[in-house]
Amino acid sequence: MKHLISCDQFKKDDLLSLFELTDKIKKNPLAYSEALKNKVIATLFYEPSTRTRLSFSAAIVRLGASLISTENANENSSANKGETLEDTIRIVQGYADAIVLRHPDDDAAMRAAQVATVPILNAGSGGKEHPSQGLLDVYTMNEYKKRMNNLKIAVIGDLKYGRTIHSMLKLLTLFDGIEVHALSVKELELPDEFNQIFKDRNVKYMKHTSMDTLPKNSDIIYQTRIQKERLKNEGINAATASFIINKKLLDTFSADTYLMHPLPRIEEVTTDLDNDPRAVFFPQAHNGMYIRMALLHQCFYGKEK
Amino acid sequence: MKHLISCDQFKKDDLLSLFELTDKIKKNPLAYSEALKNKVIATLFYEPSTRTRLSFSAAIVRLGASLISTENANENSSANKGETLEDTIRIVQGYADAIVLRHPDDDAAMRAAQVATVPILNAGSGGKEHPSQGLLDVYTMNEYKKRMNNLKIAVIGDLKYGRTIHSMLKLLTLFDGIEVHALSVKELELPDEFNQIFKDRNVKYMKHTSMDTLPKNSDIIYQTRIQKERLKNEGINAATASFIINKKLLDTFSADTYLMHPLPRIEEVTTDLDNDPRAVFFPQAHNGMYIRMALLHQCFYGKEK
Amino acid sequence: MKHLISCDQFKKDDLLSLFELTDKIKKNPLAYSEALKNKVIATLFYEPSTRTRLSFSAAIVRLGASLISTENANENSSANKGETLEDTIRIVQGYADAIVLRHPDDDAAMRAAQVATVPILNAGSGGKEHPSQGLLDVYTMNEYKKRMNNLKIAVIGDLKYGRTIHSMLKLLTLFDGIEVHALSVKELELPDEFNQIFKDRNVKYMKHTSMDTLPKNSDIIYQTRIQKERLKNEGINAATASFIINKKLLDTFSADTYLMHPLPRIEEVTTDLDNDPRAVFFPQAHNGMYIRMALLHQCFYGKEK
Repeated sequence: MKHLISCDQFKKDDLLSLFELTDKIKKNPLAYSEALKNKVIATLFYEPSTRTRLSFSAAIVRLGASLISTENANENSSANKGETLEDTIRIVQGYADAIVLRHPDDDAAMRAAQVATVPILNAGSGGKEHPSQGLLDVYTMNEYKKRMNNLKIAVIGDLKYGRTIHSMLKLLTLFDGIEVHALSVKELELPDEFNQIFKDRNVKYMKHTSMDTLPKNSDIIYQTRIQKERLKNEGINAATASFIINKKLLDTFSADTYLMHPLPRIEEVTTDLDNDPRAVFFPQAHNGMYIRMALLHQCFYGKEK
Repeated sequence: MKHLISCDQFKKDDLLSLFELTDKIKKNPLAYSEALKNKVIATLFYEPSTRTRLSFSAAIVRLGASLISTENANENSSANKGETLEDTIRIVQGYADAIVLRHPDDDAAMRAAQVATVPILNAGSGGKEHPSQGLLDVYTMNEYKKRMNNLKIAVIGDLKYGRTIHSMLKLLTLFDGIEVHALSVKELELPDEFNQIFKDRNVKYMKHTSMDTLPKNSDIIYQTRIQKERLKNEGINAATASFIINKKLLDTFSADTYLMHPLPRIEEVTTDLDNDPRAVFFPQAHNGMYIRMALLHQCFYGKEK
Repeated sequence: MKHLISCDQFKKDDLLSLFELTDKIKKNPLAYSEALKNKVIATLFYEPSTRTRLSFSAAIVRLGASLISTENANENSSANKGETLEDTIRIVQGYADAIVLRHPDDDAAMRAAQVATVPILNAGSGGKEHPSQGLLDVYTMNEYKKRMNNLKIAVIGDLKYGRTIHSMLKLLTLFDGIEVHALSVKELELPDEFNQIFKDRNVKYMKHTSMDTLPKNSDIIYQTRIQKERLKNEGINAATASFIINKKLLDTFSADTYLMHPLPRIEEVTTDLDNDPRAVFFPQAHNGMYIRMALLHQCFYGKEK
């Protein structure tokens, strides 16, 4: 793997290898504090995203690389003089040894990689791909459940537009014996393409319309944020589209049912869960830094044998 | 001291200990160039403030830590999706070993510290607290006057809204034998709370309405900026509210009366004073970096014995 | 040389000395990776310019210095409270050991240097000076042509407003036997001051109105971007003002005629040239980082003997 473009580039073995490296880095980050010494890495963000940018930034400097960055390439750059993304990449790769790219176009990371002589890491392109988020999600599942096969997952909320849930499901279902229980209003169901993906991969897939029917022994509940503004524009009732999880509700599930969320959470996960050991969304976010350290490491050193 | 939240957390001994460390750092900064090696520190600014951010940034890198930063967390972050400050802190502390926070809410730093597992350094919260500014002010007084007790200070201009002057006065009056001479229009006098503070601390406090009555042997003149726009909105005559200091006027004071200003200065200190050794507002600003190095150092290593 | 203010400060010998150092750095950048260890350098940008800022940033960190930066000093700083540039410089030089400045005023870098106690590097001030761009241009000519004397150059497009072409021509014509062939519409010819400069320096200067008459054995074709919006405002026909270069046209020139461009390019250089070895605008941009490393190095260590 040279570039990080899409979740689709990962096979089961790639994930396990990435998780192994991430485990090692997380256990002893200081052992990697000079891994990318004398490397310069640029974060080139055409869209605001403080969290992802800071997470990648921390990953970069914790590997001993130097960081050069732009918070808003769109406003500040030659972009508004009409320069193509390809030309910008061709210029920046003269300064940096790798480029972390965030861009509003779906195909931005792919186009960047086609002209790049340095690794491109996709930090979110358009509405479709945000691979490092999907990777940190499944890494977190593996960390808490100690396995990837035979996981039973409940996904809740906006299953149609949430790009993180799509990336996560594509990665998770590379493994065997996966069960997906999907809870959403009709208008926010998973896109049709997942019917085929799930069928090809022998995933047991069930739709739900109420919290009550979700399996109480789910391994993971993956809650998402409902974007009220978008729903309003589409004439969907946000109140009924949102399924709120509080401590009382989580207590109806198993003691080892973990609650995840891509964050930011607004009100769909209540704060009475913040200190519950099953609510792992903050550790999940923190794993992002370690996954990104591992991804950057693999860009330069390849997969470990 | 783990967090830096407010000037109120400092006692006399804390100040002297901080000043001692600041002296040592200022004398030989290179001796501290690896003090925070392998630490990552985030500057999380929800309000623009180039000067404070650059000063903290320089302090961070001069201690050997790595810097990750956002210039405008408000626009760029999950904040505008409705994420609470508390959640943002819980996320960023997964990336950084300390967080320097600037935020428009008065209680922001306090709220951040309540959920934080890493040190929070308040770089200005709302209109009330900007502790590192207050600390650099009294440090500068000690540097030039070689003492903190028995100081006679004249404070001039906007004494009502200027948060730096409030922080400074609260710190200064921890010491003995302090005299405060306050020159302002009636509408911009020190808030009433200072009457009690000064009484409790045996501070001699006198109000003035003209430069002429300020004691000529003042140890410090602390000038501030009048915010014309605000005064206009409140129906105060900005011209009469402003007391301009030029070389001729400063020459009527003692040879060891030092002129300070929190900066930026506009016209209330004229440029004919820029090369006068008594005009110490630029050295005062420079001390900010050393104070911040000392504060960061104490966050990780505690007070020196 | 302490400050980098203007192309005018360079004599022939200064250029050759700078090029020599740049060659050494480019050949083995790692040999310079600790040259500015423990130095802190600020990039203070009052105007957006991602490319120049990232290039200087990379130069700074590749020399081992630490970077503190602001992307938009204008919005974020005391500037909009009315602080003068001079005061801002006086403050920032307390934090940083050198300041890279980008500012909309023509005389900004000069004014900054007049009050500065640390080196000021002009990263573009107003419409007139962008010396590091001019330097990377002539460095690139020397790199590809292996000489600076007796160069025949064709300059094309907006010769009136393009500040990079002015800087470049002032530097190039320090050398002997230079021929300048200028192709533009009448409204976009080189400013009159160049008539005198060229006369004083024995430059052969010819104006052209068509690609056809440019000498086929030109050593360099320097193409520029036409700013359509500006032309429209001035009532100039942008279509006729633009002279597009494609592969077919470049093939009518010598095999060692190199095509340069300050970038961003929009449509005046077609993409069928991107992989042509004579199209050297991306290597030209990359040279910017090495030139800036050399300039920073000279600010601290002076010219090598």
